[in-house]
Amino acid sequence: MAEAVAEMTRKGLGMTCVTDDSGRLVGILTDGDLRRLMLKTDRPMSGDVASAMTTKPITIREESLAAEALRTLEDKKITSLAVVDGRGALAGVVQIHDLWRTQLF
Amino acid sequence: MAEAVAEMTRKGLGMTCVTDDSGRLVGILTDGDLRRLMLKTDRPMSGDVASAMTTKPITIREESLAAEALRTLEDKKITSLAVVDGRGALAGVVQIHDLWRTQLF
Repeated sequence: MAEAVAEMTRKGLGMTCVTDDSGRLVGILTDGDLRRLMLKTDRPMSGDVASAMTTKPITIREESLAAEALRTLEDKKITSLAVVDGRGALAGVVQIHDLWRTQLF
Repeated sequence: MAEAVAEMTRKGLGMTCVTDDSGRLVGILTDGDLRRLMLKTDRPMSGDVASAMTTKPITIREESLAAEALRTLEDKKITSLAVVDGRGALAGVVQIHDLWRTQLF
């Protein structure tokens, strides 16, 4: 958990992605997950990431349009989104700061 | 702490504002503060909000333009911002989802 939480702070995305050995996205650990964990247990750092993470997270395919990513962020009231390729492998993360300016033109 | 963390989840802003008896903003408790606390202590929920919160948070005055609020969010890579009046009283919170569309026109 400590490693995941430190990673979330380092990247400044409010989340971190969890992949299996083949690079397939199996979940994301978000600030919301951490808050739910804090409300559930006295010692949130003593568990493992797999039991705290959001499985089946909302994702977007890498060939999607920026406008589509932005609409998903807005609909779900979230600020970052995991990007996957056709076989479900993690390709990256897009954040609202990267996206909204693309809609000005 | 539990009350503050539950409030953060309820409002969906990734932060909550802390005011004194006169309504003046004295700090904000953010997801970043919670993560730093989790890395520092085994029992993050046992302390009080005042010792975990960000004092002197970035704020914006209520008469500011939306464009200015958005620029601040972008510069600081944050997604919500406390709004204060001339005497430092909390007037509200603006979030990036409320703001970016205002720049399309």
